[in-house]
Amino acid sequence: MRKNPSVEELLEAYKPDHSLPGALYYDQAAYDFEMEAIWKAEWLFICNECELPEPGDFRTVEIGNNSIIIVRSDENTVKAFYNTCRHRGSRICLEERGSSSRLTCPYHQWTYDLNGKLIFAQQVAEHVDFNQHGLKPVNLTNIAGLIYICLSDAPPDIEKFRASVLPFVTPYEPAKTKVVYESVIIEKANWKLVMENNRECYHCAGSHPELLVSLVESALPDDPKTPGFLQIMEEKIQKWESQGLPHEPVEGGNEFRCIRLPFNPGVMSMTLDGKLGCKKLISNFTDPDRGDIRMFRVPNSWHHFLADHIMHFRILPKGPYETEVRTTWHVHPDALEGWDYDPDRLAEVWLSTNAQDKHLAEQNALGVQSDAYEPGPYSPTGEFMVEHFNTWYMEAMRAMLSATSKRRASGE
Amino acid sequence: MRKNPSVEELLEAYKPDHSLPGALYYDQAAYDFEMEAIWKAEWLFICNECELPEPGDFRTVEIGNNSIIIVRSDENTVKAFYNTCRHRGSRICLEERGSSSRLTCPYHQWTYDLNGKLIFAQQVAEHVDFNQHGLKPVNLTNIAGLIYICLSDAPPDIEKFRASVLPFVTPYEPAKTKVVYESVIIEKANWKLVMENNRECYHCAGSHPELLVSLVESALPDDPKTPGFLQIMEEKIQKWESQGLPHEPVEGGNEFRCIRLPFNPGVMSMTLDGKLGCKKLISNFTDPDRGDIRMFRVPNSWHHFLADHIMHFRILPKGPYETEVRTTWHVHPDALEGWDYDPDRLAEVWLSTNAQDKHLAEQNALGVQSDAYEPGPYSPTGEFMVEHFNTWYMEAMRAMLSATSKRRASGE
Amino acid sequence: MRKNPSVEELLEAYKPDHSLPGALYYDQAAYDFEMEAIWKAEWLFICNECELPEPGDFRTVEIGNNSIIIVRSDENTVKAFYNTCRHRGSRICLEERGSSSRLTCPYHQWTYDLNGKLIFAQQVAEHVDFNQHGLKPVNLTNIAGLIYICLSDAPPDIEKFRASVLPFVTPYEPAKTKVVYESVIIEKANWKLVMENNRECYHCAGSHPELLVSLVESALPDDPKTPGFLQIMEEKIQKWESQGLPHEPVEGGNEFRCIRLPFNPGVMSMTLDGKLGCKKLISNFTDPDRGDIRMFRVPNSWHHFLADHIMHFRILPKGPYETEVRTTWHVHPDALEGWDYDPDRLAEVWLSTNAQDKHLAEQNALGVQSDAYEPGPYSPTGEFMVEHFNTWYMEAMRAMLSATSKRRASGE
Repeated sequence: MRKNPSVEELLEAYKPDHSLPGALYYDQAAYDFEMEAIWKAEWLFICNECELPEPGDFRTVEIGNNSIIIVRSDENTVKAFYNTCRHRGSRICLEERGSSSRLTCPYHQWTYDLNGKLIFAQQVAEHVDFNQHGLKPVNLTNIAGLIYICLSDAPPDIEKFRASVLPFVTPYEPAKTKVVYESVIIEKANWKLVMENNRECYHCAGSHPELLVSLVESALPDDPKTPGFLQIMEEKIQKWESQGLPHEPVEGGNEFRCIRLPFNPGVMSMTLDGKLGCKKLISNFTDPDRGDIRMFRVPNSWHHFLADHIMHFRILPKGPYETEVRTTWHVHPDALEGWDYDPDRLAEVWLSTNAQDKHLAEQNALGVQSDAYEPGPYSPTGEFMVEHFNTWYMEAMRAMLSATSKRRASGE
Repeated sequence: MRKNPSVEELLEAYKPDHSLPGALYYDQAAYDFEMEAIWKAEWLFICNECELPEPGDFRTVEIGNNSIIIVRSDENTVKAFYNTCRHRGSRICLEERGSSSRLTCPYHQWTYDLNGKLIFAQQVAEHVDFNQHGLKPVNLTNIAGLIYICLSDAPPDIEKFRASVLPFVTPYEPAKTKVVYESVIIEKANWKLVMENNRECYHCAGSHPELLVSLVESALPDDPKTPGFLQIMEEKIQKWESQGLPHEPVEGGNEFRCIRLPFNPGVMSMTLDGKLGCKKLISNFTDPDRGDIRMFRVPNSWHHFLADHIMHFRILPKGPYETEVRTTWHVHPDALEGWDYDPDRLAEVWLSTNAQDKHLAEQNALGVQSDAYEPGPYSPTGEFMVEHFNTWYMEAMRAMLSATSKRRASGE
Repeated sequence: MRKNPSVEELLEAYKPDHSLPGALYYDQAAYDFEMEAIWKAEWLFICNECELPEPGDFRTVEIGNNSIIIVRSDENTVKAFYNTCRHRGSRICLEERGSSSRLTCPYHQWTYDLNGKLIFAQQVAEHVDFNQHGLKPVNLTNIAGLIYICLSDAPPDIEKFRASVLPFVTPYEPAKTKVVYESVIIEKANWKLVMENNRECYHCAGSHPELLVSLVESALPDDPKTPGFLQIMEEKIQKWESQGLPHEPVEGGNEFRCIRLPFNPGVMSMTLDGKLGCKKLISNFTDPDRGDIRMFRVPNSWHHFLADHIMHFRILPKGPYETEVRTTWHVHPDALEGWDYDPDRLAEVWLSTNAQDKHLAEQNALGVQSDAYEPGPYSPTGEFMVEHFNTWYMEAMRAMLSATSKRRASGE
């Protein structure tokens, strides 16, 4: 009887500067629509290529109903394929990570090389054209070692993002790091609630004591929220400019963000005591006083680039009520565990922060299902980036809605 | 291919004096319809106000997709609010019970007083009218300490019920008791099967040996089912009338029921040996021979008021196949555990009975899904109260169906 | 937004000699359609009647939403009834197996005899015609001790199957065996993927080392797949014909299959070492060299009849993604455990094989959900029986689709 409004009605009900109409956070049809409008349309951050050091090293990742193989080829480039055999459709790589010189389906041993070409299949030689039965490829691009894939046949432009962030992140040589801690958690909350949570620090004071040891709540160079921030910022700008370190926010619109901001006075890293988490710095850095590069890109990633370590955060939706959050902590490949760093100490601030955010997002997810929920007003100073995120989201959804309507009108 | 009939067709297929058409016990659309027609329309029993002794004490309860806060205000009255923040919709009270002088959302610390008024929200003072952003209230009424809420904006009349039952239950001073045992179980059965099970003792002989120590199977003063019952009844009526204790069944139609009936000869309470479960009697009672007040009200509660203890039973649907049954056992607040009562002994008869009924309801729920199920005939003597319940249910559903059709016809 | 195609579209998309269109392996509507077109229309193998040795012995089995009682009557014949009481619909037999001289509903003790007739119900004698309230019967037929049921009111013909297989299996006296091992597993895969897996040995070399100790991969007498097979076959045919043992494949079309094939040279049974699994042979056999009768019938069973033991395999769908596989191992009723046979040794080859097939089917089920899945080509030599199965499936589905369309057209 009580039916959720249609996706079209939900998008129309959106009110700028307010949280989204409730059903967008839990309706299955809205989620299905997002799968097409966003998750199978946009570039998605998957991992750092350092996780695939040798040819044949692969990872699998699930985007909705699609399992994707990310593999380093014999030519030492990273490639992506749909993980479904061209014979009867079985998954080929069954594990989340592994290494193999060939991709062999476990069912009937149809075998593909690392470029996806079918090279062996028994008892079908006369009937099957091997050239027409290779693994189906997925678009992939590598930005300073960060792997992005796009399931669309017509991927959107990612070059502006690449050009904007390379000056910031290239010196960190992300591909030349190693993972020393990995965390994968499931939040029982719609993916947008997880992203909205990440897009503001309005909730930090109430929930993140560990994070606030290092993090300044200010999100912009001229943001007066943190006491004494403007003065600190002025000092840091002078120093960073003398060293040629970019710091001003890039022009990413609602789509991405990249900025260098200082830590709290006296703090050098995102650790519980503010001291370095890894004595050996990233790349060939010698001065730890480089601040924190905060990089974000819709729909699914944010990153912190610090002098001593890098963190990648990746989210993937697992249904209208469930989101996977994967975090990896990276240090210099030559850093010695126990001497240069203690992995548990390195990870503890964001492990706590992730757990706190999971709790907040899950209570948010429960509450928006109430009949009494109505979109509430954002704080202009505290939640402007949430508003950016929602604006991007509405545009992506409306664009798909419009394209779908046109296709229908033209009888396709 | 095989689709369940529509709610309208199911209601039309109903045959008086028979169990309901099968899909009404498991169809999701029928369940969604009931949510509007019954669970968000009727008064629902929630708890005894003695569970909220001090200002700031709260409970939360979930009615379908709505979490509701029941809280004792600073003015010492019990109030109810939707448990969703007016900012971004988070749940505010996260636990099933607690105590707090203010209701503070855990997400961004928006804070409400115990009357639901917004009294604090950071960084939004200039943009948000606090008077327009209080917690949304829920109708609540208190009947001799029993708390009922109604989610409808136009609650049905409950005054006839109040007037009818007060003479029975007021002397028991339910608000002046304490909970000494609480049980919450989930039955994997539609809520109507749980209620139908409660509405007859036709199944008692086969399943409830513990209950039949005390309970007479007769449901009316002139019901000859239990051997020797009419004679016992005659004696009790004389005694109770001399003491001014009401006993005749009230005129509750299909909606509610209240009656005083004796126990089996020699029995004083619903215990395994028939002796008192609590030596200190309820209120200021001195004579334990007051029989058993059986009180019932659609859609979700029944109660037993005994000389030595009170039991409240509350059901809430958790989906087409799942029902929560909460039972609380109450005694005089000054009764001493170990001396006056043993909680396990007090609760054992109905813990067993509930477990037996859960088993029966669950097997009933499985069986009605069969293609071979067709509504079967009720026993006129054994199941007349089930028929009352179904009649009430059909009227409530048809009324909503008619209202919905009218709204549609008028183009709303 | 992205919706699965309709059942009609999926059937139209079918391409002979290729695996099925993807959504037929996971779409709920397709599954619901199959329930009517196949599972409630066809004869289904349930069990060997030796599992119900005495009058009153019963088993229950769930076919979709229907629980069915299979019971041996007082007249010593096996009968089947819907397991739902004619009163309020409760399940009557709650366990998967049991024994009872009467079928008594646990709810209100309505009681039926072993022919399903209502013989007792309290407090309704004047209102209920007992003759009109017996248990609803289910069609059942017994083929050499193998019990098949059909939920349709118009069961398809099974006499050709009976006549074809009786000459093969009658000498094994299946009803005069005993179960010495039983396995029930759930495969998280559509039932058709489970059957397709069974219909080919193209995957055997890669996955079934235990099975290939005994099993020849060849599926037909003139199949040259196994080295030396044609010569072995010729020898066996001479011997079997001299003994009057049928061996040539019966003409079962796509619906059933029955054939006698030899084991690998020197092998006498499906054990890990190829030796007998039970020293006492089936029936009154003295020569173990009888090969392996492989019997299959759509939609849900296959069997192996060996000189020393019999295996029945039964599948039942539990949803679009879940299939139950039940296997029983039978030996001569007088065989002595520990002396004639060791149950674990007897069962180990097919326990391993079932576990391996479960793994393959589950990965297949995951893979076909990919957007990149497209039906792939079968091997003409390796997968021709899969093609038979799909052809039968398509015909059954199209027949139901056509019947449904006609009913609609005629306004029913």
